[in-house]
Amino acid sequence: MPELASVVNHQVRLASRPVGLPTRENWRFTEESVVDPGEGGVVVQALMLSLDPAMRGWMNEGRSYIAPVAIDEVMRAGGVGRVIVSNNAGFTIGDYVSAGLGVQEYCRLDAAALKRSGIVKIDTRVAPLEKWLNPLGMPGMTGYFGLLEVGQPKAGETVLVSGAAGAVGQMVGQVAKIMGCRAVGIAGGKDKCDYVVDELGFDACIDYKSGSVREGLKQHCASGVDVYFDNVGGEILDTVLARINRKARIVICGAISQYNATEAVAGPKNYLSLLVNRARMEGIVVFDWVERYPEAIRQIARWISEGKLRSREDIVEGGIAKFPEALNLLFSGGNFGKLVLRV
Amino acid sequence: MPELASVVNHQVRLASRPVGLPTRENWRFTEESVVDPGEGGVVVQALMLSLDPAMRGWMNEGRSYIAPVAIDEVMRAGGVGRVIVSNNAGFTIGDYVSAGLGVQEYCRLDAAALKRSGIVKIDTRVAPLEKWLNPLGMPGMTGYFGLLEVGQPKAGETVLVSGAAGAVGQMVGQVAKIMGCRAVGIAGGKDKCDYVVDELGFDACIDYKSGSVREGLKQHCASGVDVYFDNVGGEILDTVLARINRKARIVICGAISQYNATEAVAGPKNYLSLLVNRARMEGIVVFDWVERYPEAIRQIARWISEGKLRSREDIVEGGIAKFPEALNLLFSGGNFGKLVLRV
Repeated sequence: MPELASVVNHQVRLASRPVGLPTRENWRFTEESVVDPGEGGVVVQALMLSLDPAMRGWMNEGRSYIAPVAIDEVMRAGGVGRVIVSNNAGFTIGDYVSAGLGVQEYCRLDAAALKRSGIVKIDTRVAPLEKWLNPLGMPGMTGYFGLLEVGQPKAGETVLVSGAAGAVGQMVGQVAKIMGCRAVGIAGGKDKCDYVVDELGFDACIDYKSGSVREGLKQHCASGVDVYFDNVGGEILDTVLARINRKARIVICGAISQYNATEAVAGPKNYLSLLVNRARMEGIVVFDWVERYPEAIRQIARWISEGKLRSREDIVEGGIAKFPEALNLLFSGGNFGKLVLRV
Repeated sequence: MPELASVVNHQVRLASRPVGLPTRENWRFTEESVVDPGEGGVVVQALMLSLDPAMRGWMNEGRSYIAPVAIDEVMRAGGVGRVIVSNNAGFTIGDYVSAGLGVQEYCRLDAAALKRSGIVKIDTRVAPLEKWLNPLGMPGMTGYFGLLEVGQPKAGETVLVSGAAGAVGQMVGQVAKIMGCRAVGIAGGKDKCDYVVDELGFDACIDYKSGSVREGLKQHCASGVDVYFDNVGGEILDTVLARINRKARIVICGAISQYNATEAVAGPKNYLSLLVNRARMEGIVVFDWVERYPEAIRQIARWISEGKLRSREDIVEGGIAKFPEALNLLFSGGNFGKLVLRV
C-alpha cells in the first residue's frame, strides 16, 4: 500500500437532520488524509458497509437506545474491511474484520476507539465477506436473539414476520422453521414472496403490496399468530394484533413504515388485543446480546454449512458516493435482501 | 323467609348494546318469581353487587376474553350474598358466598350453573362483606397477580399505577410498597390523591385533572418508571411510555378512558419506547389466576389484619333500580373507591 499520509479517505457526514425521507442535502462529502492510529490502534480499509433501517433513527435528535449521530460527524455504519495498519498485537495487516467503520473508505481506530468499535476478526473461509454483514452480522444476531429469546417460539406454533425478505426477516423465518414452527412472512411484491417461500422454505408469504394483509392472515395463519416479529409497524401491526392467539408474543424490532413519518407515529389502535389475549409486546435491541454473539455465530455458521440456512444480499456498487441513494432503497422497499454498499 | 314462589326477583337485563356511554334505554327491568334450583343447586339472595369497568366491555358484541352478555340476558355481575335455599351438601342456608350473581336480587343456580358461577364461601369474621368485593375479591386478585406476576416489581423500583384510588389501583400501590418499591399513583382530583398518599401510603399521587401528567411524572418519577400498571389507556399511557426505564414492564389491565369511545381507540403513539427501552407491555386477565385465588386471599387477609393494607369502598344505596346510574359513575370518575351497589 502507498504511504499512509497520501491515502485519501472519502467520507459521508451528516450535514443536517432530515425531515421525512433523507435527501442528498442531508449529507456532506469530505476528504481527509489518514493519520497513524497510534499505539494500540489500527486502520481498516472498508470493503463493504451495512445499510440498515436503524440508520434512519440514528439521524434523529433525541433520546434513543443509542446517541444520535452528531451534525458533521461521519455517518455511523457497520462494515467489513481489511486491516492495513496495525499497532496492535491482536491484529495483523491483511486481517479481515467487522466493526463500526462509519461511512468512509478508511477507518482509523486509536486504542480507545478500537474498544468501542465492536471490532471482531472474521473468517472468510466460513462464509464470504458479505455474509458477515447479514446472517453472521448484526441482522443475523437481531433475528436470532429477537426470535429465540424474546419471541420464545415453541414447536408447532405459528411465527409471522414482516419484512420477511429483508436481512432480519430472512433469519427469523428460517430459525422458526428450524425450531419446528410454521413460518409465515409478509413482504412487498411477488418476487420477494416467491423467494421467501421457494428459496428460504417459509410455509407462506403474504404480499402486502398486491392484496389485503387481513385476508392473507385469515388464509395463511388460520389458527392465529403465536409470535409476530415486527419490522414494519403501522397498519400491518394493527392488522396482526387482531389475529394474535392467547399468550402471543410480539417482538418489536423496528417500524420501517414509520421512520420517515413527518407526523406522529400512528400507535397500534388494537393494542387492547394484548389484554384480551394476555399477550406481550416487547422490544429488542441487538446490542444487549453482544456477549452472546460468538455463540450465535457458531450456531448460524453450522446451519449455513448444513444447508439449513440461506441468505441473500443486495450489493450496491459504486462506493460511498452512492450512499445517499442506496440508503433510501430501504424505505422504498427497493432492495431485495440485505442491503450492502461495496466501497 | 317466605315461600320461594312468592319471592319477586327484580332483574336488570341488557336491552340493547350502547354506543358510547350506556343510557337507561340500554337496560330493561324485569320481574320473575324464583323457582327451586333442583338437585345440587342453591338460591342466593344478593346483598351487594360489584360494579366494574370491565362490565362496559361485556356489553359489546365481538370476540373478547369472555363472551358478551346477550341481548335480553340478565346483566353479568359479581356479587356477595346469602344462601336462602340449598339442595347442595356444600352449602347451608345462611352461608355468605361470593359468586357471579348477575344484576338481580336473587340468583338461582342449578347444579351446572353453580359450577360455572365461581361460587366461594366467604368468612365475614375475616373482613366485612364489601371487602370480599374489593381487596379479597376480583379487583384485589387483579391487582395482586397483575402486579406481582406480570409486573414483577423489584425492591427499589418505581411502580406507577393509574386509577390509583380505584379498586385495583389501591391494591397495586399498597402491594408495591409492601414489596419495597416506590409507589406513585395517578388519580382524578385532590381528594383521591390525598387519600392515596395519606391513607394508603403511596409516595406520591399525580392529579390528572388539575395538572399535567407529564410534569407530575418528571417530579414524582424523576428516575423513570419501572412498572406501569395501566387501568386507563389513552393519553396517559402515551405520556408514561415517554418516561419508562430500560426493561420496564407495562401491565395492561384496562383502558377506562377508551371504553365508551365511539371512534376507534387511540393507539399508544409512543409504543416504540418499548423498543428503545427493551420494555414489555403485557395484558392481564384475572380469570387466568383463579386456581391461585385462595393463596392470594390468605396473603391479603394477613396484610389487612396486620394493618398493612387498607381499602375503601363506595357503596351506592337504593338497590338494583339504581344500577344504570351507579355503573356510569365509573366512567365519570364519580366514585371514590371500589364501587359497590347495595341490593
